[in-house]
Amino acid sequence: MEYKPLSGREFPRFSGIKTFFRMPHVAADADYDVALVGVPYDGAVSYRPGCRFGPSKVREASSLGRGFHWNRGVNIFENTKFADIGDCPVVPIDQEQTYQKIEKFFSGILSSNKKFIAVGGDHSTTLPLLRSLKKQYGQKLNLIHFDAHLDTYPAAWGCEYHHGAFVRHAVNEGLINCENSIQIGLRGPLASGADLDFVNKHKIKATTVDDIRINGLEAFLKDLPTFNDGPTYISFDIDCLDPSYAPGTGTPVPGGLTTYETQRILRALKIKNLVGADIVEVSPPFDSSEITCLAAVDTMFELMCLIK
Amino acid sequence: MEYKPLSGREFPRFSGIKTFFRMPHVAADADYDVALVGVPYDGAVSYRPGCRFGPSKVREASSLGRGFHWNRGVNIFENTKFADIGDCPVVPIDQEQTYQKIEKFFSGILSSNKKFIAVGGDHSTTLPLLRSLKKQYGQKLNLIHFDAHLDTYPAAWGCEYHHGAFVRHAVNEGLINCENSIQIGLRGPLASGADLDFVNKHKIKATTVDDIRINGLEAFLKDLPTFNDGPTYISFDIDCLDPSYAPGTGTPVPGGLTTYETQRILRALKIKNLVGADIVEVSPPFDSSEITCLAAVDTMFELMCLIK
Amino acid sequence: MEYKPLSGREFPRFSGIKTFFRMPHVAADADYDVALVGVPYDGAVSYRPGCRFGPSKVREASSLGRGFHWNRGVNIFENTKFADIGDCPVVPIDQEQTYQKIEKFFSGILSSNKKFIAVGGDHSTTLPLLRSLKKQYGQKLNLIHFDAHLDTYPAAWGCEYHHGAFVRHAVNEGLINCENSIQIGLRGPLASGADLDFVNKHKIKATTVDDIRINGLEAFLKDLPTFNDGPTYISFDIDCLDPSYAPGTGTPVPGGLTTYETQRILRALKIKNLVGADIVEVSPPFDSSEITCLAAVDTMFELMCLIK
Amino acid sequence: MEYKPLSGREFPRFSGIKTFFRMPHVAADADYDVALVGVPYDGAVSYRPGCRFGPSKVREASSLGRGFHWNRGVNIFENTKFADIGDCPVVPIDQEQTYQKIEKFFSGILSSNKKFIAVGGDHSTTLPLLRSLKKQYGQKLNLIHFDAHLDTYPAAWGCEYHHGAFVRHAVNEGLINCENSIQIGLRGPLASGADLDFVNKHKIKATTVDDIRINGLEAFLKDLPTFNDGPTYISFDIDCLDPSYAPGTGTPVPGGLTTYETQRILRALKIKNLVGADIVEVSPPFDSSEITCLAAVDTMFELMCLIK
Amino acid sequence: MEYKPLSGREFPRFSGIKTFFRMPHVAADADYDVALVGVPYDGAVSYRPGCRFGPSKVREASSLGRGFHWNRGVNIFENTKFADIGDCPVVPIDQEQTYQKIEKFFSGILSSNKKFIAVGGDHSTTLPLLRSLKKQYGQKLNLIHFDAHLDTYPAAWGCEYHHGAFVRHAVNEGLINCENSIQIGLRGPLASGADLDFVNKHKIKATTVDDIRINGLEAFLKDLPTFNDGPTYISFDIDCLDPSYAPGTGTPVPGGLTTYETQRILRALKIKNLVGADIVEVSPPFDSSEITCLAAVDTMFELMCLIK
Amino acid sequence: MEYKPLSGREFPRFSGIKTFFRMPHVAADADYDVALVGVPYDGAVSYRPGCRFGPSKVREASSLGRGFHWNRGVNIFENTKFADIGDCPVVPIDQEQTYQKIEKFFSGILSSNKKFIAVGGDHSTTLPLLRSLKKQYGQKLNLIHFDAHLDTYPAAWGCEYHHGAFVRHAVNEGLINCENSIQIGLRGPLASGADLDFVNKHKIKATTVDDIRINGLEAFLKDLPTFNDGPTYISFDIDCLDPSYAPGTGTPVPGGLTTYETQRILRALKIKNLVGADIVEVSPPFDSSEITCLAAVDTMFELMCLIK
Repeated sequence: MEYKPLSGREFPRFSGIKTFFRMPHVAADADYDVALVGVPYDGAVSYRPGCRFGPSKVREASSLGRGFHWNRGVNIFENTKFADIGDCPVVPIDQEQTYQKIEKFFSGILSSNKKFIAVGGDHSTTLPLLRSLKKQYGQKLNLIHFDAHLDTYPAAWGCEYHHGAFVRHAVNEGLINCENSIQIGLRGPLASGADLDFVNKHKIKATTVDDIRINGLEAFLKDLPTFNDGPTYISFDIDCLDPSYAPGTGTPVPGGLTTYETQRILRALKIKNLVGADIVEVSPPFDSSEITCLAAVDTMFELMCLIK
Repeated sequence: MEYKPLSGREFPRFSGIKTFFRMPHVAADADYDVALVGVPYDGAVSYRPGCRFGPSKVREASSLGRGFHWNRGVNIFENTKFADIGDCPVVPIDQEQTYQKIEKFFSGILSSNKKFIAVGGDHSTTLPLLRSLKKQYGQKLNLIHFDAHLDTYPAAWGCEYHHGAFVRHAVNEGLINCENSIQIGLRGPLASGADLDFVNKHKIKATTVDDIRINGLEAFLKDLPTFNDGPTYISFDIDCLDPSYAPGTGTPVPGGLTTYETQRILRALKIKNLVGADIVEVSPPFDSSEITCLAAVDTMFELMCLIK
Repeated sequence: MEYKPLSGREFPRFSGIKTFFRMPHVAADADYDVALVGVPYDGAVSYRPGCRFGPSKVREASSLGRGFHWNRGVNIFENTKFADIGDCPVVPIDQEQTYQKIEKFFSGILSSNKKFIAVGGDHSTTLPLLRSLKKQYGQKLNLIHFDAHLDTYPAAWGCEYHHGAFVRHAVNEGLINCENSIQIGLRGPLASGADLDFVNKHKIKATTVDDIRINGLEAFLKDLPTFNDGPTYISFDIDCLDPSYAPGTGTPVPGGLTTYETQRILRALKIKNLVGADIVEVSPPFDSSEITCLAAVDTMFELMCLIK
Repeated sequence: MEYKPLSGREFPRFSGIKTFFRMPHVAADADYDVALVGVPYDGAVSYRPGCRFGPSKVREASSLGRGFHWNRGVNIFENTKFADIGDCPVVPIDQEQTYQKIEKFFSGILSSNKKFIAVGGDHSTTLPLLRSLKKQYGQKLNLIHFDAHLDTYPAAWGCEYHHGAFVRHAVNEGLINCENSIQIGLRGPLASGADLDFVNKHKIKATTVDDIRINGLEAFLKDLPTFNDGPTYISFDIDCLDPSYAPGTGTPVPGGLTTYETQRILRALKIKNLVGADIVEVSPPFDSSEITCLAAVDTMFELMCLIK
Repeated sequence: MEYKPLSGREFPRFSGIKTFFRMPHVAADADYDVALVGVPYDGAVSYRPGCRFGPSKVREASSLGRGFHWNRGVNIFENTKFADIGDCPVVPIDQEQTYQKIEKFFSGILSSNKKFIAVGGDHSTTLPLLRSLKKQYGQKLNLIHFDAHLDTYPAAWGCEYHHGAFVRHAVNEGLINCENSIQIGLRGPLASGADLDFVNKHKIKATTVDDIRINGLEAFLKDLPTFNDGPTYISFDIDCLDPSYAPGTGTPVPGGLTTYETQRILRALKIKNLVGADIVEVSPPFDSSEITCLAAVDTMFELMCLIK
Repeated sequence: MEYKPLSGREFPRFSGIKTFFRMPHVAADADYDVALVGVPYDGAVSYRPGCRFGPSKVREASSLGRGFHWNRGVNIFENTKFADIGDCPVVPIDQEQTYQKIEKFFSGILSSNKKFIAVGGDHSTTLPLLRSLKKQYGQKLNLIHFDAHLDTYPAAWGCEYHHGAFVRHAVNEGLINCENSIQIGLRGPLASGADLDFVNKHKIKATTVDDIRINGLEAFLKDLPTFNDGPTYISFDIDCLDPSYAPGTGTPVPGGLTTYETQRILRALKIKNLVGADIVEVSPPFDSSEITCLAAVDTMFELMCLIK
């Protein structure tokens, strides 16, 4: 099995069965290094649903994907075997079943020493991913979390596991290493000042758009922490981007990041062992001209460079 | 309190707070006759979600609504007090809680001898509505069910209460009177021939688009049963309409009805005691130019004539 | 000057400056027979504006127009000189000025024995067109009026000349011959039963969608009156069509006509002297996939056959 | 290899890699009976391009596909092995290369006694399909051609093989049996009366929308010829449908068929040996709410019943 | 009466009757502090209409609104009573009547010592708002004017009060204090160099996008004037934003501001007595994915902080 | 003949026949100085087609165009005679014919000492434009090339002249002066590292988005080369802009330029003799809210200033 994308120079990019980056579609237990995988669950969304179509539409947009990173000078397809293993099973009506299925499916991938990049789905799906990673690695993960929202919010409508609470649960369940974690792209408004108590208490480095813009991006990049110890995870909520760059999402917030900024941040990150990553909250029914999907594909490319 | 719509001749229809048919927004326990009410739950949808936005967008489109029915020669606002009582509380992540809240909320309405027209939401919300009606009236309901689908399908992904199963549950729970029930607008394809076993066994009159088109609409109208005994309920799944008339729905099926046909059928129905009705599966994110919402508003108008 | 359309067989239809049916753009006083002309005023709309863009978008869609009518066996470009004379001047903020400009502009066209097909603009623009025709011909016009609405409604918000009142004014000003006039495509709901008083009083033949559907289209066609005496005018409000055929309009009404039905009616009309016609209420911002504009173009083609 | 679709009752229909009808994606030389295959070439379109995305978007919409035909009482997946073999190679810039690739690719399929249903792509792609069939079967094909257009038009801009000429070439190259061929859904306007000369000369049964509507659909169905002798081919140009049913196409024509009508016609056809079929001119960039793609999927289902 | 928004943590944000920021809908004479109010008039627009739907769609988008401002550390709902008082009456066809109604309606609000944030409507509606404020306060207002355009343009088509002239009239009528006024977000092209004469003559501080970008946003913020004396008004034309951030507007101009920039400017303003504000020119029919409405909501939130 | 645009102050900008910047439509051999001309060919696109509609939709959006450049202090219509000469003839199916027609058509314009600004069409159309310029001027051109892509890519699918190869051909055919040429807006990903060999070998100054953002725009502008010797050409591929600013294009790439940046670069360019320019790859079917077309119009305005 050769893990190379179908070439656009031979086969036009609008043709063919749509897989992530035109990579081979293989079984979950094939001999790839990194799984590209969809998690099409959107049952925990508080406003606009639709990210159940995220994996399908990101696959389609990724037909435009290419492999050589100009700044890094590397071709992601040369030393790493990426594969599309399809979608993780989910149950749209039942979050509990879905959580079990996700945790089991990803534990299967991880148990054979593979890594993954997951495409959501809403942000509630990150929690079972982190659970499976914690179980596999036996230690807390460093979390690099791109988001407009803190995702430490309390239960809503009597439900703990809505799409804005995974960080709170991950901390409370001992899944992440707060001191080596960072949040990027945060911005208000908040529901109340108490929203900040959780990250303050747990000393999570919660950075805002102001932190990137007031002193400038280059300064922000220089101040980024390094992730040399322990397994690291990146969770990229597409709503860290401004609605003009990512309109197709569940709870958009004006005043957000540009794709250039997230590219530069992803390129500046020093991570010794990235063990998994996700891109969540891409809601195609609210996208326009596929630009949100394109932003997701571009982010996926940067993640593929980091996870090598 | 005067239950009259805001006049478009005085106040332009694009202005004002959006309520159903520009009727007053009142509390659930006010002295109206018929509640117009939203049920924005879409957690049980098998394909496209989005009908949680149904109530909000149908309210907006209903700004174009008028009160005088040309064929009937009556003004719906003259003898009946309609009111918008807002939306029933729901929990997007939790169907069980949602079912309890719906049943409780509607039982409250019914217990003071009121009627309702509900705007969904997905078709799984009809079941708790029927439960509350059965409880209130103490007898089975006649069901007039407009739909492309039978909604007698078995559990999916281990879940009983998905959006294609309410008829099966309603029959099994003894909520509806099968011999006095009819399905209108059905069409294939089906998953298998066994899909028809349930309606055949329970002798529900399952009519198809062919039944309307082959001998003609006028013949179909003449053959409609009458509903003189017992309380009657109408459940109108917008996907009974063809996708060209109602693109904004969760599981559209080509070859469907036109709005003219459903108007004529609704006008031809002889119902002695219509106690409630719903319009479900209007998914605005997939609508185009609001035509699905407009079809829902038009249907709502016909239902308001019938429920007097 | 040769009044022939640019050939699509030589020049692809997506290319070139957009004029109605790819006809030459000439000055209002050139030697054509029938002016194709825009009237981009939408200030009198009661709900959705946007038909100021009607002329521009109908021009574009008319690039697909062809000249030979299969049923009639004639090519409209062979014996009649059609020309695009651009748009009539209008003032978006000021209806009074606009009315004066329209009446003056069209009187200029008519005074040299020409005819016109106007593309609106909202339906309030038909009144000054009728005024200019009455002045030119010195007699009342027969009116063939396609519409979902009666357009005999009373003043709104203190304004007489909104887009739903031109028939009332035309009758009151003695511009049309009520006994030789017909309305086609009407349907409810109405604001009140009194809405019908005006047409009843003036004996305008107000036909509804039911009149076409219950006994069938062929019967309706046979019953159409003939228009042998006096000048005749056709006013085609695109909302006579169902919203599925013409979503891009200001006040859509479900249960409307199909394009096939309006084609057949237009083909069946016997008119000795059609002196002018309009197509109004095409609102491109609310259109989807240009289908409303295409329906307008198709109607325009039928009118071009009738006005020869 | 089991040729069964992924079950929507186990795996939600929004999930998974998108293939036609959720069938297995196999190599062109696998042991299926009927290939479902894309031909994403749109270089010969005269107005709107975009049908190169037809195969991809029809695959996606076909996730809603089911297998049991209510009227026929058969499940298409029971006795026939359908498979998605991906897309035929094409060259967007070069029609000559594309024609060669199509003819070669399909000859490969046919030479092992398989059949196919192709999803275009523009209508120029039908010609090389017919060439490969003629070569394989050694005799002319009966052609059942659904279209708004005759597709016998002369060369345009010096090019013979544009998307409105395949019938002319097929006749001239001796690929089809004119006396056993029929065109369905035709309508005007035409460029000139001479457009009809070709079908008249070659005695192709060219039927129009009027032929279906004036005497009624049931009468039309009774008059359909039977196709008992020789191999038969169905070419379904989605623009046979009205723009309200199929807005996403290259050259839409108002006054067209409904999906119900084409369903009924496809169900009424008596064909002894259907050897291939195509659905062409589905242009997703101009679609709205995917209804054109859904109409294509529905048609594909009917073709799958016929090709057993 | 408690002036608190409906909580999204209890009631999902997609549910309920849509009011600005989910605040109570009360009568104009209730005991709130600041009215949130729509002014749905768009009759004076020179290009794209549609902002008559601005209030309705901004209400809907404001369901996502929250109350705590991260940078300011305050919750807007704690010390100020905001209320949605519905829409001001307008007459779509008649600007003169509309101006009278607006002036009267807002004078009523102001006369009981209340403030307001108005959502337009086109920019011609700001003039009567300023008139009512001048009358109430008896002195000229400081104007902080965000816009791509100077809005000092001369009469058009014989009309003085089009949507690009309110500044000229406000100055000429003595409504604003030019020396304490500023324009932000201006950019070309202009119709002619003479367009600048008015602001130069009246010494209005007309700043451009260059003024913000060349030396950087932080420098611009430091140079902002303070507004300590007299009543101050903010008029925010959404087209100060770039079309990528606010596509849904009447006359978009590339090269505009980002939402981050306008957030920062609004946060940096030192205003002692903000007595009123408006957000105008939000045209939902031209919006995509609601991002213009979201930008309006975000701006409204900043204004609510300033008007406390 | 007066070469002035129709005034928006007299004639509303939504009215009238659509030409570029509302300039007169004249014959190619009229006495203008600079032709504004469409080249609606999109046959060489590798992913999304549709830019054949670029000229038509840019004409429409240019109705908002104005003539006075604030920064330059000049009115473009005062000293230069611009005219819309319609579209160059093209053959959608046949690139070879199209290339011949383009070269011939533009040679005709150039031979009478005129200049042009062309609106594509895809980027393959630039090559014949450069050929005609080289022939006319007898020397190589300086090329200022805005693009996300290098356009030096090798043949694809056996075709040399796809839309990503014009720079390679222009260099190989001796049409451009590499040392005096610059590429602006480039960014990855690339297909492979070898993609950079061509520009490196030929010493084309290939600048990236990083070159503009890391040290800041002002620094970049200061470092721009001057173009004092020989004829200069600007080719502006709209995809140099970020997808949020220009979604409507064939192969969008995240992380791109803003319209403000391209405005400033175009304003900073020192060019002695700009002999022609193009704006390509505007694909309206993929645009949203016309913002891509507006960006094209704005760029066209800057080019009109430079070409005086």
